[in-house]
Amino acid sequence: MISRRQYASAQQRAADLLRKTRIALKEDELKRIEVADMGLSELDQSGVQILTLVDTEKIAVKLLTLFPHQTEPEHVHPQIGAYAGKEETIRCEWGELFLYGPGEPTPHPRGHPPQHRRKTYTVWKEYHLLPGDQITFQPGTPHWFQAGEQGCVLWSFSTKVVDTADVFTDPEVQRVTVIIED
Amino acid sequence: MISRRQYASAQQRAADLLRKTRIALKEDELKRIEVADMGLSELDQSGVQILTLVDTEKIAVKLLTLFPHQTEPEHVHPQIGAYAGKEETIRCEWGELFLYGPGEPTPHPRGHPPQHRRKTYTVWKEYHLLPGDQITFQPGTPHWFQAGEQGCVLWSFSTKVVDTADVFTDPEVQRVTVIIED
Repeated sequence: MISRRQYASAQQRAADLLRKTRIALKEDELKRIEVADMGLSELDQSGVQILTLVDTEKIAVKLLTLFPHQTEPEHVHPQIGAYAGKEETIRCEWGELFLYGPGEPTPHPRGHPPQHRRKTYTVWKEYHLLPGDQITFQPGTPHWFQAGEQGCVLWSFSTKVVDTADVFTDPEVQRVTVIIED
Repeated sequence: MISRRQYASAQQRAADLLRKTRIALKEDELKRIEVADMGLSELDQSGVQILTLVDTEKIAVKLLTLFPHQTEPEHVHPQIGAYAGKEETIRCEWGELFLYGPGEPTPHPRGHPPQHRRKTYTVWKEYHLLPGDQITFQPGTPHWFQAGEQGCVLWSFSTKVVDTADVFTDPEVQRVTVIIED
């Protein structure tokens, strides 16, 4: 959970990072940034800020903002009935990202998930994304990522999004953010 | 058709427009800008420059560049077998766009397609897009667009692209660009 004041403050910090990119964004858009603490109540360590630009029955375009060293926990976009699951391209727009997927573990990974949740991070092949770098994950591929020291702004280009269906490795994650009044 | 020299020059002009946006693009990406003269051999009037960032079996992300007053001719993304056709969101990133779709014709449209092709433009409901503005077209919706006086950079976020299947109102359009040696 997150307090209303924390939520507003995180929106503001995310908007400040988005402004650094110089992407054409309206003030109205910046006001609807979603703050996702993943139910872990440690937003600076675990979570992501999301600005959705397109969200149809077929595709989605989002700008994801991560604070310095903030980590999006490991998760999978599963098949749902006839829908194969979300195919997602992550493209770095600003800052630096350490992204992890299945494969030969990288010997000395530069990303460090929160120590007390270390066991819930199971894929360790590292991709280092700088602005203009991108990678596409097929549905059902576990992945997680962490921003570098300045934070990061990412594009997520994907097929239809069903965020609440995402399966996180950490059983403590709750995708729906609970906001409590200050 | 277009000469190799014209093609390279158009790529360069498109790259210059893309650099104005400050979107993180690699030099390697700028080198693969596609110049589409629509077979009309009047690129400054009719055509579009395309940088494809994502192109999978499911989605596509492109940056479209238009020179000042350059027009993308009217077209439809049709159904192809089981595929409903391309759903496309056009979002203005830089410059100004006059975009037209079905509906009540706008009384004094600000876009002016090439006079000698005027009859091949049949939809006249105007949408004026400035940076941060966007519109989503369902498959099968005829549309065309023209840049304002400074040119324009647009995002195209869409389902799977089959450019060569696009149906243009103007029978003279040929979607595949023919390059001739100087």
